[in-house]
Amino acid sequence: MAVALLTDFGTSDIYTGVIKAVMFSINPALRFLDITHWIEPQNVRQAAFALLDAYRYYPKGTVFLVVVDPGVGSTRRPIAVQAGGYLFVAPDNGVLSYTLSQLGEYNAVEIALGVDGEISKTFHGRDVFAPAAAKLASGIPLHELGEPLPVINRLPMPDLMIDPPHVLGEVTQIDRFGNLITSIGYMRWLDEERISLNPAFGDHQTVPVFPGNAQITVNDQSILGIRHTYSEAERGSLLALIGSSHYLEVSVNQGNAAQRLDAVIGDRVELKVGEPDATVLD
Amino acid sequence: MAVALLTDFGTSDIYTGVIKAVMFSINPALRFLDITHWIEPQNVRQAAFALLDAYRYYPKGTVFLVVVDPGVGSTRRPIAVQAGGYLFVAPDNGVLSYTLSQLGEYNAVEIALGVDGEISKTFHGRDVFAPAAAKLASGIPLHELGEPLPVINRLPMPDLMIDPPHVLGEVTQIDRFGNLITSIGYMRWLDEERISLNPAFGDHQTVPVFPGNAQITVNDQSILGIRHTYSEAERGSLLALIGSSHYLEVSVNQGNAAQRLDAVIGDRVELKVGEPDATVLD
Amino acid sequence: MAVALLTDFGTSDIYTGVIKAVMFSINPALRFLDITHWIEPQNVRQAAFALLDAYRYYPKGTVFLVVVDPGVGSTRRPIAVQAGGYLFVAPDNGVLSYTLSQLGEYNAVEIALGVDGEISKTFHGRDVFAPAAAKLASGIPLHELGEPLPVINRLPMPDLMIDPPHVLGEVTQIDRFGNLITSIGYMRWLDEERISLNPAFGDHQTVPVFPGNAQITVNDQSILGIRHTYSEAERGSLLALIGSSHYLEVSVNQGNAAQRLDAVIGDRVELKVGEPDATVLD
Repeated sequence: MAVALLTDFGTSDIYTGVIKAVMFSINPALRFLDITHWIEPQNVRQAAFALLDAYRYYPKGTVFLVVVDPGVGSTRRPIAVQAGGYLFVAPDNGVLSYTLSQLGEYNAVEIALGVDGEISKTFHGRDVFAPAAAKLASGIPLHELGEPLPVINRLPMPDLMIDPPHVLGEVTQIDRFGNLITSIGYMRWLDEERISLNPAFGDHQTVPVFPGNAQITVNDQSILGIRHTYSEAERGSLLALIGSSHYLEVSVNQGNAAQRLDAVIGDRVELKVGEPDATVLD
Repeated sequence: MAVALLTDFGTSDIYTGVIKAVMFSINPALRFLDITHWIEPQNVRQAAFALLDAYRYYPKGTVFLVVVDPGVGSTRRPIAVQAGGYLFVAPDNGVLSYTLSQLGEYNAVEIALGVDGEISKTFHGRDVFAPAAAKLASGIPLHELGEPLPVINRLPMPDLMIDPPHVLGEVTQIDRFGNLITSIGYMRWLDEERISLNPAFGDHQTVPVFPGNAQITVNDQSILGIRHTYSEAERGSLLALIGSSHYLEVSVNQGNAAQRLDAVIGDRVELKVGEPDATVLD
Repeated sequence: MAVALLTDFGTSDIYTGVIKAVMFSINPALRFLDITHWIEPQNVRQAAFALLDAYRYYPKGTVFLVVVDPGVGSTRRPIAVQAGGYLFVAPDNGVLSYTLSQLGEYNAVEIALGVDGEISKTFHGRDVFAPAAAKLASGIPLHELGEPLPVINRLPMPDLMIDPPHVLGEVTQIDRFGNLITSIGYMRWLDEERISLNPAFGDHQTVPVFPGNAQITVNDQSILGIRHTYSEAERGSLLALIGSSHYLEVSVNQGNAAQRLDAVIGDRVELKVGEPDATVLD
């Protein structure tokens, strides 16, 4: 059985190694699959987006160990959750909430403390979450980890305001290539000239977008049109496209859009949906 | 069986990959568990601390492959060591010495060269240490790797001077969160108002510390009191606490102490142990 | 069976994790061995060098998943190749060409699209290359992945001009230690005083080099002599040596040559081969 890890511990210290060592000591047959350990320190929201975009590629039965935990040692609860055939272990700070919104019904427990020896006040990743994940991945049922918890904490939804012909969103992630991933998401290509906007967050409202002359504005710079892929723009040019996780993204073909636009997470993104009579991009 | 890896090779070049490839070619059933590969280039002492803090979380029988090797190609010996139920493969430059001090008795051999084909002068990680680790992890006994070596090299102990009411130490590690880990270590909470200082290094002298009004000074900045966890301080405030590896640490709640204090490894840390009549922190 | 991964996806986003998740979902018995994920974004040539230097350490039967893909979504072909007992999956942009030059005869197919569900336009690593690699590593034969492709694309060979007594090359890689790896390669020590230059690239011409007084020049700074190892130079001194991948390298003993020489990939390297009557370095 596999444990997928998502943390802000990095891999330059011993922390991530120690978490795996703890799980390996409990069950040496476990497989470890890293999502990433380079979430910004204590950026719960960034981790929530990463989990939402990654979880579906893992087989059912995978245990997700998610530790971004600014409240470690405080009263925030450690939780384990079962939903959609997956299992999750995390602090109850909302880091699972976007994913659980998508998965629907869930069962949660508050992980009982003190059953695995001494617990530090500063490293529950090692002392609480890793043992819980290893047990779940070894087949121990959820209800043996602690008492049921009827409701878990949720993060606020990302900024997304639909006010036709405008859609307002924000930059939610910036990847190593400098691509800006936005909260304007789940668009589908309907036919040659129309795509539908179906936000991941909030009401699943459908907005028709005309990619040929839609206009995307970030940091006072505007981009005309929504492309299918990078190479439809000149090398070095800004472009907008629908990324592999089905969000509107802003990129530079073989370049770095974040540097070009001096963009950071949280920057406002405006989409003007365009007109149906627009000339299709060639 | 598992090989735990601790190196300064990073993961941006092919070196770490190649080391694993060599071991996997010898025995494809081996498991590889990374401690970290981001030890500062050639910083033997940083690796010695990392191993000391990490090894105990791995199951007995684990082989530790530790390669931080500024003397590669010179006359420094390659060694393999058995101690406390663990096995270690490393250059004989002291990188194992803090851990072996803690484990007590050990058996060491000088790894015989030339039994695994051509050996480069610059990459013994690949040509000497990886094959040796793979063999040990495959069950080949230590004495078959080379001739016994009665004594191995040791690093100097970290700065730690106990001169009540003062304890002087140094910053030994800085983690990705900017926490300063110090050489003032192995403190235990005795009761509500007293903790004992029991250094990892040198004589195991016990010093009572009164956390309520102990004073910690780094780079001319003083902190009052030793806390249990980050959240006992205001967000953004400096604090001192006992870290998850049982050293005195200096942190900022949800911030970066190293940046705040402009601290680097080796900076001097002073602890004034406080008075028994102090008001306990609330 | 094992899949060795070489990409420019980094490990700070979810991309590399998702690629492994896709393969793990296809076959949970697969082993994943990272070469590196930190190739410079879209630097096909850097990846081609890395693969050339790494592949031989993996056991026969290994599947290499190589994804550095600036042309994703364009008309560049996805390919799978069998050569020298190894298997390779990559975009047909030349990234395999240095390795295939060395391995000689090969069989290639163009990977048929659309057999594994929806394919994004921007992440063929996930939707095309990972499924193909997982299938090959699970024993599905090459010819079942697509139609034969008689010829694949090749990168230009690196700069290397032999004009005795001069050899002109370029910096092809810079590692985390700041070592400059050059295109002047495959030198062998013939006897105490002579080594032969046998380039990896172009004609396998042999040039005698007299290491005692050979002269290496990078960015107007000259180094006298070719050493066996770092410790033959003073700590902090520039030196030239034959690296572990059998190229001429420029290093600083326990320092960083790239910083010292302000060098970047592509910088010109000049070797003057020296005279047979030279005094051997002591």
